[in-house]
Amino acid sequence: MSENKPTNILSTIDSPADMRKLSVSQLPMLCQELREFIIDACSSNPGHFGSSMGAVELTVALHYVFNTPYDRIVWDVGHQAYGHKILTGRRDRFSTNRKLNGLSGFPNPAESEYDAFIGGHASNSISAALGMAIATELQNESPSRKVVAVIGDASIAGGLAFEGLNNASINPNDLLIILNDNDMAIDHNVGGLNSYLVNITTSRRYNNMRNGLYQFFKKLRLIGDESKGSILRFNNSLKSLLSKQQNIFEGLNIRYFGPADGHDVENIVRILHTIKDMKGPKILHLCTKKGKGYKPAEQSPTLWHAPGKFDKETGEVVRNTAPNQPCKFQDVFGHTLVELAEQNERIVSITPAMPTGSSMNYMMERYPKRSFDVGISEEHAVTFSAGLAKEGLLPYCCIYSSFLQRAYDEIIHDVAIQGLPVTFCIDRAGIVGEDGVTHHGCFDLSFLRSIPGMTVAAPMDEHTLRHLLFTAQAIEHGPLAIRYPRGGGEMIDWHCPMHLLPIGKGRKLQDGDTDIAVLSIGNIGTTVTHAIEKAREKGINAAHYDMIFLKPIDEDILQEVATKYQRIITVENGTVVGGLGSAVMEWMNEHNYYPRVRRVGIPDKFIAQGTVAELHKLCGMDTDSITTLLTTTW
Amino acid sequence: MSENKPTNILSTIDSPADMRKLSVSQLPMLCQELREFIIDACSSNPGHFGSSMGAVELTVALHYVFNTPYDRIVWDVGHQAYGHKILTGRRDRFSTNRKLNGLSGFPNPAESEYDAFIGGHASNSISAALGMAIATELQNESPSRKVVAVIGDASIAGGLAFEGLNNASINPNDLLIILNDNDMAIDHNVGGLNSYLVNITTSRRYNNMRNGLYQFFKKLRLIGDESKGSILRFNNSLKSLLSKQQNIFEGLNIRYFGPADGHDVENIVRILHTIKDMKGPKILHLCTKKGKGYKPAEQSPTLWHAPGKFDKETGEVVRNTAPNQPCKFQDVFGHTLVELAEQNERIVSITPAMPTGSSMNYMMERYPKRSFDVGISEEHAVTFSAGLAKEGLLPYCCIYSSFLQRAYDEIIHDVAIQGLPVTFCIDRAGIVGEDGVTHHGCFDLSFLRSIPGMTVAAPMDEHTLRHLLFTAQAIEHGPLAIRYPRGGGEMIDWHCPMHLLPIGKGRKLQDGDTDIAVLSIGNIGTTVTHAIEKAREKGINAAHYDMIFLKPIDEDILQEVATKYQRIITVENGTVVGGLGSAVMEWMNEHNYYPRVRRVGIPDKFIAQGTVAELHKLCGMDTDSITTLLTTTW
Repeated sequence: MSENKPTNILSTIDSPADMRKLSVSQLPMLCQELREFIIDACSSNPGHFGSSMGAVELTVALHYVFNTPYDRIVWDVGHQAYGHKILTGRRDRFSTNRKLNGLSGFPNPAESEYDAFIGGHASNSISAALGMAIATELQNESPSRKVVAVIGDASIAGGLAFEGLNNASINPNDLLIILNDNDMAIDHNVGGLNSYLVNITTSRRYNNMRNGLYQFFKKLRLIGDESKGSILRFNNSLKSLLSKQQNIFEGLNIRYFGPADGHDVENIVRILHTIKDMKGPKILHLCTKKGKGYKPAEQSPTLWHAPGKFDKETGEVVRNTAPNQPCKFQDVFGHTLVELAEQNERIVSITPAMPTGSSMNYMMERYPKRSFDVGISEEHAVTFSAGLAKEGLLPYCCIYSSFLQRAYDEIIHDVAIQGLPVTFCIDRAGIVGEDGVTHHGCFDLSFLRSIPGMTVAAPMDEHTLRHLLFTAQAIEHGPLAIRYPRGGGEMIDWHCPMHLLPIGKGRKLQDGDTDIAVLSIGNIGTTVTHAIEKAREKGINAAHYDMIFLKPIDEDILQEVATKYQRIITVENGTVVGGLGSAVMEWMNEHNYYPRVRRVGIPDKFIAQGTVAELHKLCGMDTDSITTLLTTTW
Repeated sequence: MSENKPTNILSTIDSPADMRKLSVSQLPMLCQELREFIIDACSSNPGHFGSSMGAVELTVALHYVFNTPYDRIVWDVGHQAYGHKILTGRRDRFSTNRKLNGLSGFPNPAESEYDAFIGGHASNSISAALGMAIATELQNESPSRKVVAVIGDASIAGGLAFEGLNNASINPNDLLIILNDNDMAIDHNVGGLNSYLVNITTSRRYNNMRNGLYQFFKKLRLIGDESKGSILRFNNSLKSLLSKQQNIFEGLNIRYFGPADGHDVENIVRILHTIKDMKGPKILHLCTKKGKGYKPAEQSPTLWHAPGKFDKETGEVVRNTAPNQPCKFQDVFGHTLVELAEQNERIVSITPAMPTGSSMNYMMERYPKRSFDVGISEEHAVTFSAGLAKEGLLPYCCIYSSFLQRAYDEIIHDVAIQGLPVTFCIDRAGIVGEDGVTHHGCFDLSFLRSIPGMTVAAPMDEHTLRHLLFTAQAIEHGPLAIRYPRGGGEMIDWHCPMHLLPIGKGRKLQDGDTDIAVLSIGNIGTTVTHAIEKAREKGINAAHYDMIFLKPIDEDILQEVATKYQRIITVENGTVVGGLGSAVMEWMNEHNYYPRVRRVGIPDKFIAQGTVAELHKLCGMDTDSITTLLTTTW
């Protein structure tokens, strides 16, 4: 690497068109600058670091070769897409990444015409891009529009991606799939497909034979040296020659190219030029390194997936090391699970690719044989849990709320109909903050409440979380969902003795002496507590009940509230459509009570990114908003 | 085949244990008798015929070799499982198949210990069986319990099945997967995986070479003749020898055996004996014929998937040929779609493997290039539709309500967040009747209502269905769901001119002169009409509004109802948890009205099979129940 940088190329790139004016030989320097820009930006404004670092060269190569935005790039999970954002006119706004009214941390067509499709949940890119490619074909777009899906090796193992692959060849289309293979999801990747990809990649015998034969045929002038196309064709023929059977992708009638070095931008450009106009669906397998170009990240890719702020010189991650900070709900869950598993050997735990984020890693370390990281496959995680439960085990299935949407049918069909004792530990429930619109856990309370036989609970505090986790294994009551938010509660001393909680029973936190009662569920109840205190300062003394259970709902509490109060405020960190507020009204009507009810929660619209506090305020779920509701007449 | 049957074997089989007393040579006769029993039973009591006929030999062989119910057989979609039910103590009750209080048409553990897992929705068997196998392993069951998943070639293409396969090898387990490959879903099978399976199966060159080499090695005494085990090992080695690359299953670290003739019961028994104690996950690929043993069914497998009653001698299917019968909603949808597609060339249609059942086949015949049967892959169907819509097409995505649960996340993430104009044509919404608990479309109204920006409609009659289908393409209003029930409406002359319906506007069917109004949505409104007529005979003249739209809900109607009536009955063919009733209460509270509301719909429990009329009565959704509600005070 040259020490002196004669020009700063990146600052001249306001769109991919600018980049296409560069010579191929300038691209490595652009990649280096882009990398430095990402390091610089992410060190002060935290984000998804490692994936985007690994995708720098392929990002540059794609925008260099393809005519974006006319050609479409569909990013599977926007983790990879920071470079893409920076190169497509958003460099100067990149400091607002993941902030309120700033850039979204994921591709979003509402933000830029270069973001061809939404990309927050894994494995959707192939199906979406296939639809776009076929639409292009059907509408005879001229010039013919290219569509590229960029998918990681973790995402391609998801069922949706496989369905997309399986369908990629049945209708005319020229889809190009880039497999960005870094052998990692957020945590280390798992599953048969993964070892399959490793096998393809590392088959030294195959590669040696290929090189040997290539030299041999070249001597015979059967193939030329200039045309990379002939080499690629040669490779495919060779593979056919060596194998009567096809590889997975070829088995699905998708032409396979690779593996190639995903950090050699000039070579990627050459390959893309060669294959971009080929007819039919095709896959290019690129091997990359998560965190590439930043040593600390290369060495600890899981930590550097989304490291938070860091010192870019030392590579030291800035930790909030103030003493006596409340523990995260995740850690309370993780440690409690280990405690319970020590006492009850029928407990097992399952997570689809989120052991670190969910803190299930404590259980995995302590009981590796009783812990299952199934990779990005929420559906399998749930049905697999049902199978474990059917044979007498007690699975704790830990999934983020917004990803649990993927497994809705499996919850109903495989768990609830059979009444199996699967405990769903639903992490990232409610507003999650910076990850934004695709990641808020808005819907679980509503979609779970509709399922017969489902028990749905949300702890207000860490102790209740522990009691719920304890209760789940103690009574084996059928499916039980426990949902809690991302991040910290308010307790320093969370490690209490655990005891049974009666199913469907809430608790009265305080009586009121006005006409108004607040029913809350989950950790948002602490906000209610603050609001009630503030209202008391204004002379309004409202009652407060922590429902704990959304379903079955505590009928004794509802009876008491119905007879003692005329106005009810329901508060939940979830959509107000069909959630706690609706449950309360349904019960009241059924029992001939007609109180006035106001629902506080996530309104019926999609909520973008911001801090949790900002978004709670936006949704009217903050202390002030609830105080106002308590102190005004309606 | 011998003409005389010296004994009737089947009548002596009251459990698989009885069957295991037979000699292997008696099994072909048992298969023949079982087949005749199924033909006889299904000719008078309609059911899923073709799949079970094709699975006769593998069913007999499995129960013969495995120690059921201690060993577990998990059937993927119970279509295949009639033989299983008949052999496992339910022969004499089989005439009650699919009837109220009778046998379920699908495997259900609540019905028999031989039904190891629920099996109504496709592709769940591998994940469930894997969970069961690993639970067995973890708990050190002795003797070691075998777990077998039986999955069709259509179901194995579903994303969930792939996730299961991908995870099958990462933890110790001895799972056996039987791939029942009949090259058919309900309609003909599609997708790359399908042609891959055909390639494996029909590779004559490979099979010839295998036979030649086998004879060669045998001459050299490198392999023996007696041990089938050595042959299987030989085959695997040969495959490795011929192919440096593995087949899909071996690529996923699952040992692959086959393909073998799925109708040679004695050979299947031999193979199963050989492989049943092998360690590790394995797959046995059996080739079968849907409808095997009944000529008409072999020739027209789609028709004979679930043919209804038929004359078993002539093979003539009994048709309800009375003139001037109302058309099915499905056919109104199918023909109307073609009409619209003729006028608007941006219309395309998508179905996951249900072209005939949904009547999308009319569109497929007329516009094959604009129609996409994507196989069993509901998730892909939705995300693919989103991709088509993103590039300017107008997809009509046709999925049965209970299967749409599989695509809940894709509806939210890929369609709704981007506000794409995908029209969901939700078939089999509400109570479906004989298919029972796994197939009722109970939840779509609730789970769709929670999604921001979603428009949710349900036509009361065929004309409204046509207007809604017309409106969807005329205004491109973002995601629009149109849900309708299985089967017939009440109109003979359904072919009306189509016009725009304003989004979110219902209609008043009649004014009332008492304190009560009924708000209904969907075809169940015709039941309300009958109930109101009956109530009128008793002097109660209730108002009736057909809401048409659940979301956005007609606020003018709600305003009118709130001011004119004190009591409201909401009627919907869906769960009462979070549906129309809840929507009405939410609005009323929000606007300071507090009427008395009673919700009529599917109660909050799982509903088994029966006729639609029987089940409506059970749910209190029939004319009499609604009449009673109209004519009593509450």
